[in-house]
Amino acid sequence: MTGPSTPARGLEDVVMADSAISLVEGERGWLVYRGFDIGELMEGPSFESVVHLLVLGTPPGSESLADLVSSLGRNRPLPRSLELGVDAMAPTVPPMDALRTMVSLLGDGTVAFPPTVEQGLRLIARSPTLLARHVRRGAGESPVAPRSDLGHVANYLWMLSGETPEAARVRALERYFILLADHGMNASTFALRVVLSTQSDLMSAATAALAALKGPAHGGAPAKVVEMFDAIGDPAAAPAWIDSALTRRERLYGFGHRAYKVEDPRSVWLKRIAREVARPERYRLAEAVERAGLDALSRSKPGHRLFTNVEFYAAVVLEAVGLSRELFTPTFALARTAGWAAHALEQSKDNRLIRPDVRYTGADRGRRWPGPAAAAGAMRMEPETKGP
Amino acid sequence: MTGPSTPARGLEDVVMADSAISLVEGERGWLVYRGFDIGELMEGPSFESVVHLLVLGTPPGSESLADLVSSLGRNRPLPRSLELGVDAMAPTVPPMDALRTMVSLLGDGTVAFPPTVEQGLRLIARSPTLLARHVRRGAGESPVAPRSDLGHVANYLWMLSGETPEAARVRALERYFILLADHGMNASTFALRVVLSTQSDLMSAATAALAALKGPAHGGAPAKVVEMFDAIGDPAAAPAWIDSALTRRERLYGFGHRAYKVEDPRSVWLKRIAREVARPERYRLAEAVERAGLDALSRSKPGHRLFTNVEFYAAVVLEAVGLSRELFTPTFALARTAGWAAHALEQSKDNRLIRPDVRYTGADRGRRWPGPAAAAGAMRMEPETKGP
Repeated sequence: MTGPSTPARGLEDVVMADSAISLVEGERGWLVYRGFDIGELMEGPSFESVVHLLVLGTPPGSESLADLVSSLGRNRPLPRSLELGVDAMAPTVPPMDALRTMVSLLGDGTVAFPPTVEQGLRLIARSPTLLARHVRRGAGESPVAPRSDLGHVANYLWMLSGETPEAARVRALERYFILLADHGMNASTFALRVVLSTQSDLMSAATAALAALKGPAHGGAPAKVVEMFDAIGDPAAAPAWIDSALTRRERLYGFGHRAYKVEDPRSVWLKRIAREVARPERYRLAEAVERAGLDALSRSKPGHRLFTNVEFYAAVVLEAVGLSRELFTPTFALARTAGWAAHALEQSKDNRLIRPDVRYTGADRGRRWPGPAAAAGAMRMEPETKGP
Repeated sequence: MTGPSTPARGLEDVVMADSAISLVEGERGWLVYRGFDIGELMEGPSFESVVHLLVLGTPPGSESLADLVSSLGRNRPLPRSLELGVDAMAPTVPPMDALRTMVSLLGDGTVAFPPTVEQGLRLIARSPTLLARHVRRGAGESPVAPRSDLGHVANYLWMLSGETPEAARVRALERYFILLADHGMNASTFALRVVLSTQSDLMSAATAALAALKGPAHGGAPAKVVEMFDAIGDPAAAPAWIDSALTRRERLYGFGHRAYKVEDPRSVWLKRIAREVARPERYRLAEAVERAGLDALSRSKPGHRLFTNVEFYAAVVLEAVGLSRELFTPTFALARTAGWAAHALEQSKDNRLIRPDVRYTGADRGRRWPGPAAAAGAMRMEPETKGP
């Protein structure tokens, strides 16, 4: 056994860098993007404006917003070589796995370190086109070309369905995109930074971020919330169903988050958005499940303050705007590409290889290989060690 | 500004976990796989035996080695759906980018968390087939089907060239594979663990590892060593060339490693292997460049003990066994898949989300959005915050 330190498991509470992008204050329920409280961003700005804020560092002026909107629009269509790559994938590949592979395809040797704003906007603009194309293939439908006259979120819904989406749905999903756009040093953003720290390229780093976001401990579980709603079916059935699940020691999805000791501010907003856009009976069921879950958890873990997390009402919102369950996690990823682009630019400004240590707890050095060559006393080569 | 701690930049010296796989003792020049010094593994065991050691935890018995060899052989051929995916990529995509995309294609929804030995062996077995197929497409050549009668490394060379490789070349490359198979908590292995910590799947995690390995600060620079040799051309020209490069403040590739204060034991062995397989004039040039580089660096950084790192003689070995430069980093990756499989299994045994913190240094909370909606005094929604 070597190394004096006790491992910092999960690197919890280890501060790995300074960052000016977002502040997560779990004790107070704050989420702040470059000084703007998330609530401040729920009314005025478009997703594109928040992209400007995160990636370029400031709220846009009208000219710089027009430039950014036009750059996103220009980057939406896929070059033919990329379409061929997408269309060669088996249509049965789940959308999140497909998105990881397709963003990797964006890294075709033309994207060099260090990351640029233009590369970041390409990632943000092109990911929805890739995803929508694959999802429509999976459904046996032909692709819908992007429209540059629609906003980012409206165009995403358009490419999925081929129908111009209603304003209320667009606005609900746009606020979801803003709420999910960044969140401090989460696991996918961290994976992105680890990759960039080797001076690898932005698309490689975003691929790694997607690989991490897929996991149910990060972004891969919101569909399970809707599955729970369906299994419960009726508000009155919620308490018994929850108690029975807890008795069977099943995990309740949509409750609890490592960073928040008070209610996640995103949950507060998503609940409000859900109330506006979800079918009333669905919203009532969600509320009943929330209440039953919190009651049961406070009984089983007295003293703990537990809340629904971002996944809970996010699932209600995403369902209400018409997204199928398998699109929940990839849609989260589309929102988060904004934060990834911002973190990539920040990481590359003051780059240092990210490489923690481990404490070796394996067999002691000096074991002899039991194979025939050693046993036969075959001539061994000894290295000419130069070190002390 | 929030958070009391000073950031641990690059997480240097932060111990993030216990690991029984490999010991890197930079002060003493040790590299140990599960108790076996790397020198002990240079004579007896095959790469397959070292895979057994790393992934399954013990040196193989003859029966368990036969099982592992047969599993690797069975996994070499690609299913047709995967061949279609590979062949749809532009042949101009650099091999390292292509390998990242192709390993991502292995994660097609059928590979679930937690990782298994069988999944690890599939990753190890299939990666060379994917890489060789793409490289031959890039050269306008038809693919060469894998052979199950050849060892792992011999089969890789076979699939690249379609010719049965000489035993000396195979053995040199096999020792390279063993030397590069694992190395503690390097950046790619760390990226793999970050991804797995979200309970994402092994192929997603290996994709992230490939994304990290690509960077020149990790595995992406060995080809630059050969470029340097070509630029120097003649042993006698080495000192002047090196001095001039240092005067221009250019980075010398192949010198120095964060972890080693003495000579990297892998370099010692790779130099010996290089002497055996490289053309004598190439080896003499490499030696002259090494000497000139170390002389110049010790003059410019007196008191520092500097050595060539693993990339320096690795480049000589890889060139000598007939690999083109663009294959250097992907070949490193193929060797490292063994370590990645081992670390994936270890990580998933005691899994906890890997998620460090950042210290927020951005604008203070409370900024007001300057857009028209706010300016017009549009009705704002306030969240019903439930926390204290």
